[in-house]
Amino acid sequence: MNSMVALRSVFVDGGCFSRFQDKPKMLKARKRHVRIFAVSSQKADKSIKVGILGASGYTGVENFYSVLSIPIILNLIRNIFIANHPYFGISLMTADRKAGQSIGSVFPHLITQDLPDLVAVKDADFSTVEAVFCCLPHGTTQEIIKGLPTSLKIVDLSADFRLRDINDYGEWYGQPHKASELQKEAVYGLTEIYRNKIQSARLVANPGCYPTTIFLPLVPLLKASLIALQDILIVSNSGVSGAGRSAKEANLYTEVSEGIFSYGITRHRHVPEIEQELSDAANSKVTVSFTPTLMPMSRGMQSTINVQMAPGVSVKDIKQHLKGFYENEEYVTVLPNDEAPHTKYVQGSNGCHINVFPDRIPGRAIIISVIDNLVKGASGQALQNLNLMMGIPENTGISCMPLFP
Amino acid sequence: MNSMVALRSVFVDGGCFSRFQDKPKMLKARKRHVRIFAVSSQKADKSIKVGILGASGYTGVENFYSVLSIPIILNLIRNIFIANHPYFGISLMTADRKAGQSIGSVFPHLITQDLPDLVAVKDADFSTVEAVFCCLPHGTTQEIIKGLPTSLKIVDLSADFRLRDINDYGEWYGQPHKASELQKEAVYGLTEIYRNKIQSARLVANPGCYPTTIFLPLVPLLKASLIALQDILIVSNSGVSGAGRSAKEANLYTEVSEGIFSYGITRHRHVPEIEQELSDAANSKVTVSFTPTLMPMSRGMQSTINVQMAPGVSVKDIKQHLKGFYENEEYVTVLPNDEAPHTKYVQGSNGCHINVFPDRIPGRAIIISVIDNLVKGASGQALQNLNLMMGIPENTGISCMPLFP
Amino acid sequence: MNSMVALRSVFVDGGCFSRFQDKPKMLKARKRHVRIFAVSSQKADKSIKVGILGASGYTGVENFYSVLSIPIILNLIRNIFIANHPYFGISLMTADRKAGQSIGSVFPHLITQDLPDLVAVKDADFSTVEAVFCCLPHGTTQEIIKGLPTSLKIVDLSADFRLRDINDYGEWYGQPHKASELQKEAVYGLTEIYRNKIQSARLVANPGCYPTTIFLPLVPLLKASLIALQDILIVSNSGVSGAGRSAKEANLYTEVSEGIFSYGITRHRHVPEIEQELSDAANSKVTVSFTPTLMPMSRGMQSTINVQMAPGVSVKDIKQHLKGFYENEEYVTVLPNDEAPHTKYVQGSNGCHINVFPDRIPGRAIIISVIDNLVKGASGQALQNLNLMMGIPENTGISCMPLFP
Amino acid sequence: MNSMVALRSVFVDGGCFSRFQDKPKMLKARKRHVRIFAVSSQKADKSIKVGILGASGYTGVENFYSVLSIPIILNLIRNIFIANHPYFGISLMTADRKAGQSIGSVFPHLITQDLPDLVAVKDADFSTVEAVFCCLPHGTTQEIIKGLPTSLKIVDLSADFRLRDINDYGEWYGQPHKASELQKEAVYGLTEIYRNKIQSARLVANPGCYPTTIFLPLVPLLKASLIALQDILIVSNSGVSGAGRSAKEANLYTEVSEGIFSYGITRHRHVPEIEQELSDAANSKVTVSFTPTLMPMSRGMQSTINVQMAPGVSVKDIKQHLKGFYENEEYVTVLPNDEAPHTKYVQGSNGCHINVFPDRIPGRAIIISVIDNLVKGASGQALQNLNLMMGIPENTGISCMPLFP
Repeated sequence: MNSMVALRSVFVDGGCFSRFQDKPKMLKARKRHVRIFAVSSQKADKSIKVGILGASGYTGVENFYSVLSIPIILNLIRNIFIANHPYFGISLMTADRKAGQSIGSVFPHLITQDLPDLVAVKDADFSTVEAVFCCLPHGTTQEIIKGLPTSLKIVDLSADFRLRDINDYGEWYGQPHKASELQKEAVYGLTEIYRNKIQSARLVANPGCYPTTIFLPLVPLLKASLIALQDILIVSNSGVSGAGRSAKEANLYTEVSEGIFSYGITRHRHVPEIEQELSDAANSKVTVSFTPTLMPMSRGMQSTINVQMAPGVSVKDIKQHLKGFYENEEYVTVLPNDEAPHTKYVQGSNGCHINVFPDRIPGRAIIISVIDNLVKGASGQALQNLNLMMGIPENTGISCMPLFP
Repeated sequence: MNSMVALRSVFVDGGCFSRFQDKPKMLKARKRHVRIFAVSSQKADKSIKVGILGASGYTGVENFYSVLSIPIILNLIRNIFIANHPYFGISLMTADRKAGQSIGSVFPHLITQDLPDLVAVKDADFSTVEAVFCCLPHGTTQEIIKGLPTSLKIVDLSADFRLRDINDYGEWYGQPHKASELQKEAVYGLTEIYRNKIQSARLVANPGCYPTTIFLPLVPLLKASLIALQDILIVSNSGVSGAGRSAKEANLYTEVSEGIFSYGITRHRHVPEIEQELSDAANSKVTVSFTPTLMPMSRGMQSTINVQMAPGVSVKDIKQHLKGFYENEEYVTVLPNDEAPHTKYVQGSNGCHINVFPDRIPGRAIIISVIDNLVKGASGQALQNLNLMMGIPENTGISCMPLFP
Repeated sequence: MNSMVALRSVFVDGGCFSRFQDKPKMLKARKRHVRIFAVSSQKADKSIKVGILGASGYTGVENFYSVLSIPIILNLIRNIFIANHPYFGISLMTADRKAGQSIGSVFPHLITQDLPDLVAVKDADFSTVEAVFCCLPHGTTQEIIKGLPTSLKIVDLSADFRLRDINDYGEWYGQPHKASELQKEAVYGLTEIYRNKIQSARLVANPGCYPTTIFLPLVPLLKASLIALQDILIVSNSGVSGAGRSAKEANLYTEVSEGIFSYGITRHRHVPEIEQELSDAANSKVTVSFTPTLMPMSRGMQSTINVQMAPGVSVKDIKQHLKGFYENEEYVTVLPNDEAPHTKYVQGSNGCHINVFPDRIPGRAIIISVIDNLVKGASGQALQNLNLMMGIPENTGISCMPLFP
Repeated sequence: MNSMVALRSVFVDGGCFSRFQDKPKMLKARKRHVRIFAVSSQKADKSIKVGILGASGYTGVENFYSVLSIPIILNLIRNIFIANHPYFGISLMTADRKAGQSIGSVFPHLITQDLPDLVAVKDADFSTVEAVFCCLPHGTTQEIIKGLPTSLKIVDLSADFRLRDINDYGEWYGQPHKASELQKEAVYGLTEIYRNKIQSARLVANPGCYPTTIFLPLVPLLKASLIALQDILIVSNSGVSGAGRSAKEANLYTEVSEGIFSYGITRHRHVPEIEQELSDAANSKVTVSFTPTLMPMSRGMQSTINVQMAPGVSVKDIKQHLKGFYENEEYVTVLPNDEAPHTKYVQGSNGCHINVFPDRIPGRAIIISVIDNLVKGASGQALQNLNLMMGIPENTGISCMPLFP
């Protein structure tokens, strides 16, 4: 019996609990077990069957290649299910335009993986799965999710259920929301902030990548009234994998390499999501400045956030509050001293690195946060959420060790 | 005599006068000459001999490779002297550690060029040149320039003569200024703003790259009192060629590619230069927020500048003022409509592209400007300045056509 | 009259005559002219009007973005016409799908240039031009060129007139050749080899990029019988701008960056062109091994060619022969010693760098040659050819100075 | 008891057993286990303590940054020990120049990891570890390994024990071998070929990256006499992380990005290692042509190998033999049809993808193989080897799922 626990412990470590040295409680929990050399090649149980909707990223003729969703899907498949996750197994993958094909024929690097063939969503047998990750494009997601069995747990990676006010959705996405009842049920999946609600949710709207970089530092500060609601100025840089599906020429190598440009200035679609959550945290309407810029790199995202501190509050206070807030969190790290966050230091991991700096303008502070937009900004957080929803340890199957170089 | 004018006309076009269609005066000046097919291979006169000090970029044992100055020097050599400039010829190149070597042995891509061998600065015969570009590292420049014949025209690409208050220099560079008399004489070389002073200058301090991106939009706006002096918030992105010489590991390919990070937060050395010129333009002390970030690309620089507009001033007013201010300038372009500036669209050229956008925060505006940090941010502007100082057309030998892709 | 010669001298230097120090004859020709400081802003004459067919790169619905031809076209426009060329002016640009638009609306970096609006090829007035560069896709070119006035000089950058045997064309391009009469007239535009024929040609088929890297070293060696015809093994690496128009997903940043892959193994469409010219040079049928690989970079191309030397021939003999053959050529350089050619050292220039190395296998040699695939491999050589065809100095308007970094 | 086995199975799957669908035996072994939801956060046992010698990559004043070894070391730490490996724990890390520092101060991306501080090798307590990975530079390794307790298992990632003939070592490395007795004991660590010997070895010389790409296809073909020993021509492309420590300037971003160049032509130090193993496999002296080229990417390696087939042997025969040879191997995949191997499809994984193509030259074949030079070419194979040496499943802790994009 004792040995069972010992063995179970291994899965959990598929994620990572090795932590800062100033988190003694967690470290103390580590024990040295007896050495066992049983050699076995049986599979993990992977007894929870899940599905991926929109698994090919090819979603329609006019939309022949979704740069946004393909990398996210590949991360879901990679970081999570196949490589590391002891409980989840993929038994269903839908892709309407590629129905009938093997995943290896769509993504050759998956040729050695044992994955189900692609089927059309209308032909999918949802009775065989307990949960789905929905990777369909914004706008088509609502009706498909409406048609799913209510017994399924759903993590939706599109924007379709992120805006609580369906009028906001209509305004920013140019079409009325088609599943307003479901919207009421949806929980916003910023794991560190909404963990309790997520645990009992059936439908989780996984946050956008830009919003994640902004909320992890700002939500705790707004809740604690440490910063002003006025003049929150955010300038974000993103790797091209987050650039979105519509910009076809703009994503070609010869266009992206060795150059940068801003896009969606004043009116990027993540703005209503950003202002919704910040207003909630502040309990008052918040309007932000937000300018995203596209970088010549595949992954990685940085937000440089300039805030006015509340009267009497110092940079040290802000940093201390964030340190305390995330002390027991595995994936959010407030960096020591004046170390600048590097996107490469979280690349491929579910981590978010944050630091706070004094501004030259008195009373203002500069907060910089970085994530891997495909992991903490998409598939990594999605898995965090489904783990919670299924009652297994939140970090199961999630690497927190960055890939570098 | 008449033929001399004809001859001259050709050189000038080595730069470019082809312009926007809304600049009719300039276009009207273009004439069609008779067609001649004489075939000749005589050289341009290149009768003004110039020198480059610090031409190898290797400036000392502890400082074995200056990433900053090498690309700048190579641009000087390339864009300017050899390829295009009809008057300037390079007859002197100094490089203490590489003295005696050919330039082709230091930079193999120059192997086919007819350039003088490198000499030590102490052995240089300055009687043979009329002007020098000084590409020596910050700190060593002052004494060397102090020792030059006073008949020489000098464009200094280091920071040593940019700060009018030598106490500022001491504070930011950690050592006292050693040529305070020369400092009084130095003219700050932001060509479009200080053109008149530059024409009669002997010593020009060529601006830093970040400052150039900031001043071209902000100086005219501050002079016209269209924006507030408070809360000018600048976030800049730079290609790695501008990262500076000391960061050795940080500039390796495996460190830079596919990742970004901010540096010099709160206290980048360009700050005093930025605040000096903005304060001058505003006729009042200006303190700015400035955060630079390093990009995985060789060239290119973007500043995203967030400003509070003066009461009653609109985004349209700001844009209209900049358009008017730069109407007859060849190298500064205010983009039409809501087109975002791209660094690739000015890559390799001396151009600066600017546009102005409304912010979501009422009363604020977002100004984005881009340059090639090695050209308008360094060697291109240096040549503009020397052209002016020597009394020849400002655009002589300066390409304004970007390299793309 | 004398002044005309002086005037002419300037244009020619728009290219470059600065050369190796071991090419004394050329250097001796350089003279120092009297110094003149007349200031004028008149334009060069640009009296030879030329057209570009297929100038937008957008050639049809199914073929929405031609990565291959766009960079080539942009190079034509940039390196050549606008920036540097004193005789050629662009007065016609066709682009069927973009007819009626300005070039700045298609390529924003050209927004400041004074270029004609795009027209449909069927609406083009060819009476206004003396020559055209044809940048249309393979297959559509033949009929369009057949319909042009016979007074026009044509440089065709497609593959449509490269294969002298129209049966070869049918076999490799999957459709019969539609202009066999024109094929007989076409001259293969490898400038250094076919200079005489090109001078009197009306229609020049500009060589492919891979073939250019291969022929410049191999044609002289085969003609001199210094290498065996058997077992010529070529492995080539190309920047993605040469990857061709059909590979849409494959050219996205996230696909290309940080990875490499070979394509067209055994049957790349440049093979018949390669074997045609090598067989001609050898006066006997030559069959080669050719494997191209795509690189994560925009420009640049390298061929590594492994050959069996003829009996009694040494690596030194081969190198010496190439050195002699290219002694007076401006754009082809045999590197000294054992310096490896770098693509960056010819980037943006019309140069080709070659070196020869002993193989470990006795009797074999390794020849490495590099070019910028967009310049010497396409638009640079095209301009060399049109200069020749129009009777003006071959190097007019062609930069030979690389862009670095 | 049964449950123990079930649970143990999970570790092993930390690697991957999901395989091709045409490997039915392996797939049949997979069983579905009962579902268990015990939630625990205890650590894996990690009861086998190992050390890393030379863990900082900083190995001496003159050699201030070892680009080669740092990425390898980081991979060791990442892919293997921390993230995935259930048995191995790192309890010792040496780094002479950084002794006393934390690993987080040297590699900030490791700041959240629980790793021992760096110590000098002379101060290391080897009684606490059972095995070491030796990441010291070539030349210094021999004496340090000679001084280690004989009870330790050692995987050496340098070249110091790869050449069985110590005279070869002296010739290629310019100094006499200092541990000839140890050399006799060393086993060459090409896992798939020497698995049996490695299992009982004490000292394993981990293969170089280039050799690994070459041996995996060629050794089985030479052993089966399917290819000729003459005219084996290899052209390899490598990401810059494998470029070696001495090339300082050459590894800067501005030098590497957007360009390629060959190096070590004719005499790369991997040549004797390549010829040693090929000669062994052929039972006769083999001399090869080998030309490596540096790519603008961090990871990834491709070898294009051109061989003469033995009389009567076809491309199909060669491919069939390789397919059979690697049928039960987890990390080596012979691709179906004419799919070209992509380095991105093995990036971050321990996989090697191989395919075989007909050459245009009759009787010759083109073999292309790709690996991640840092994983299968270094740290991944090193872990495969130590797993074998310690008697645990070979794939423990080794990801086979590539990172893409």
